[in-house]
Amino acid sequence: MSDHYTVTRTFLERLKQAVAPAQVLSKPAEMEAYAWDNTQLRYMPGAVVLAENRDQVVAALKTCNDAGMAVTPRCAGTGNVGGALAVQGGVVLSTQKMNRILEIVPEDRLARVEPGVINDSLQGALAPHGLFWPPNPSSAKSCAIGGNLAMCAAGPNAIRYGVTRDWVLGLEAVLADGTVIETGGWTTKNVVGYDLTRLLIGSEGTLAVITQAIVKLAPRPQARRMLRAFFSSVSQAAKAVSQLMAVGEPPSAIEFLDAACLDILRSENTVDVPDTAQALLLLEVSGNATMIDGMAEAVNQQIQALKPVEMAVAESDAEAEQIWSARHALSPALKKLSPKRINEDVVVPVSRLAALIDGVSALAKQSAIPIVCFGHAGNGNIHVNMLVDPADAAIMARAEKALEKLFDLVIRLNGSLSGEHGIGVQKKAFMSWEVGTDTLALQRRIKRLFDPLGIMNPGKIFPDT
Amino acid sequence: MSDHYTVTRTFLERLKQAVAPAQVLSKPAEMEAYAWDNTQLRYMPGAVVLAENRDQVVAALKTCNDAGMAVTPRCAGTGNVGGALAVQGGVVLSTQKMNRILEIVPEDRLARVEPGVINDSLQGALAPHGLFWPPNPSSAKSCAIGGNLAMCAAGPNAIRYGVTRDWVLGLEAVLADGTVIETGGWTTKNVVGYDLTRLLIGSEGTLAVITQAIVKLAPRPQARRMLRAFFSSVSQAAKAVSQLMAVGEPPSAIEFLDAACLDILRSENTVDVPDTAQALLLLEVSGNATMIDGMAEAVNQQIQALKPVEMAVAESDAEAEQIWSARHALSPALKKLSPKRINEDVVVPVSRLAALIDGVSALAKQSAIPIVCFGHAGNGNIHVNMLVDPADAAIMARAEKALEKLFDLVIRLNGSLSGEHGIGVQKKAFMSWEVGTDTLALQRRIKRLFDPLGIMNPGKIFPDT
Repeated sequence: MSDHYTVTRTFLERLKQAVAPAQVLSKPAEMEAYAWDNTQLRYMPGAVVLAENRDQVVAALKTCNDAGMAVTPRCAGTGNVGGALAVQGGVVLSTQKMNRILEIVPEDRLARVEPGVINDSLQGALAPHGLFWPPNPSSAKSCAIGGNLAMCAAGPNAIRYGVTRDWVLGLEAVLADGTVIETGGWTTKNVVGYDLTRLLIGSEGTLAVITQAIVKLAPRPQARRMLRAFFSSVSQAAKAVSQLMAVGEPPSAIEFLDAACLDILRSENTVDVPDTAQALLLLEVSGNATMIDGMAEAVNQQIQALKPVEMAVAESDAEAEQIWSARHALSPALKKLSPKRINEDVVVPVSRLAALIDGVSALAKQSAIPIVCFGHAGNGNIHVNMLVDPADAAIMARAEKALEKLFDLVIRLNGSLSGEHGIGVQKKAFMSWEVGTDTLALQRRIKRLFDPLGIMNPGKIFPDT
Repeated sequence: MSDHYTVTRTFLERLKQAVAPAQVLSKPAEMEAYAWDNTQLRYMPGAVVLAENRDQVVAALKTCNDAGMAVTPRCAGTGNVGGALAVQGGVVLSTQKMNRILEIVPEDRLARVEPGVINDSLQGALAPHGLFWPPNPSSAKSCAIGGNLAMCAAGPNAIRYGVTRDWVLGLEAVLADGTVIETGGWTTKNVVGYDLTRLLIGSEGTLAVITQAIVKLAPRPQARRMLRAFFSSVSQAAKAVSQLMAVGEPPSAIEFLDAACLDILRSENTVDVPDTAQALLLLEVSGNATMIDGMAEAVNQQIQALKPVEMAVAESDAEAEQIWSARHALSPALKKLSPKRINEDVVVPVSRLAALIDGVSALAKQSAIPIVCFGHAGNGNIHVNMLVDPADAAIMARAEKALEKLFDLVIRLNGSLSGEHGIGVQKKAFMSWEVGTDTLALQRRIKRLFDPLGIMNPGKIFPDT
């Protein structure tokens, strides 16, 4: 073989023999679906393995490792940072077809699943048992558990329940050389040796391929209540978030929309937005049916004290739907507004939210690029969307500068470059802004320990040297 | 130096120069307090460093690493598995004096603390803010955050809140060679590179010395209600636990006491125990004041359906105190009963609780050793106490056999050797029973990566080779 990324005919034959001929794709037309993710980037792999079971994952990895061939693990391919893209060619190893829910054990509040199970399918299977798996990215209908594990996905539920790493008991995974490891176990407490479970979660397929997970489940709240509050300033909205987080039971969701979002909603005319409103909070409380009114009222009172422009508590499912519609109308509207949006999911401590949003407004003015902010305010996790035209080089150059200034601001606010999307190929150049030299060097050494030949998802997470 | 464990006069001088002469102890009388933990084992170290700040930790580690000298990190020394004992001599590096609460940020629900802060002191400082840190080992009044982090401690709160690893945002730690790393950060979401935070938590001081932690806080529930239910069989009590965990909001604590415990309580005469009772559940619900009665009633009804021998809901703080007294009376009573107890904290999936308790009863009969079980039933985490006399060789030999049979049973029930105490020196011989060969080999390689010379807490976690 000439290099670690070119799939030769000889290698392809070897891979087919090792895995199963029918599970290996090599024609561009067949592989097209595996060349994309949610970034609009496109990288055609040299071959795609559609593993149907753990043994095929082992066989594929052994074959690749023996040849030093690059492997990009992939599941549903809905990621936002290019994590599932074969940016340097080589083999895409998909676990999408390993999509069985192996068991659900309600009395132990756990389920054992393969990585290809779609998040929403798992939720559907759990609902009759009164249980759910808390991680709920907005892509829940199409993203898979494998991707949720690889990126440590989250979503609005994170404010109350935490993120993917908090809801996994154990993993089965395959290392680059085909070694199968099992981490954690079946119990909610386990302090037997190092926590490899959480080392793998969020490692973006650079350390191992996850082939099975024992996930921890939560009881479904009996009842939910939606609230909506428009504010005349971002700082008042941010103050409300801080106060809600400082005392009492937190709401189960606190979503934020900035002034730019409200302008879009005004122009779309789907939601009534008061003229003086500059920020919107969408809140959800959830709990037992007998308590839900009290919970909603407690949140209502906390917010009323801050004198919002307008405040509403949904009295019915239809009204709740109407309240959420403001959030749901946003993504399609953004798509109409510009050919591309650079979508960053930065996160700051909740007390620094106003400083972040103010800083982004200033950046938008400086760079003359429309920037729209919304997101999971209860975690300080804001999706900063720059609306750009990739065909306009001047705009793209200004966007790049603005992005650097954004990350600089976030770091100065004690924040983090990514709350739930991960690093992938998109943010790796900025890793060293957040992670110190010695800590990053240690991470690189861990990477080499798991994967001495560097075949696992090369070109991801770590900055180029 | 003749070996890696003997502190020579030359080495001692070097250590004093590097750290600060006043912070290094070497007289046996001064070091006696650092030779013990909660295991009744005693190992006198060659020297003790009482670090007052991170730089002294760095200096101590560099000096030891240069000499290949064994270092046993230690905090309050309240552990149950010998983790803080210098079993092979060398230097004890205590962070007990680094005991400042550096800041509390209520609106971000976080605190930044040094490792020597006592768990209970932190809770006291947080109370005025309406916040608390959920990990609450029964040693909370004397154990330190550093030990909680090192062992991934838990306690009754784990059922609702999870364990230490779920309540830490970021760490500062020093590697064997003196390198300072910072992991995680200030935000509740963070997916930037590998999760070194959780790799260090529970690593028992074998990878690094933690010098600072940013901990995540939870709102203090406004109200609590205690319930008590006696059952005529273990299987009925276990069924109640399973059912409580399968639907609805879990109680904030479900503590279990077995028939042997009840016999002790009967003989102590401090608590009224019905004649036919064979098991006791102590339950706590907590939440907002307006909801607490509803929550207690929901649990009451679920348990009543299983026809307990006797059921009580505390109507006052005094009654709640009275209910908890059953649990608190236990430890002193056990101490009176036998010169030593072998205290294991095994854990099984909740649905296997009855099988575990039945198996332990059988073991007690077979081995003719009194075994008393109690613990955190909501997590399936049971403290199995063998009452033995270390002076009686025949009993100790039978106890050793019984212990092996216990661990074998736990593994067959998909359980884990330790839910919250850790492995330390006490359970390392059994590590390979739970952790597979390849996974254990990987853990050893991680250990070597962090600590090439093997100076950090040698003789812990890993089985002797």
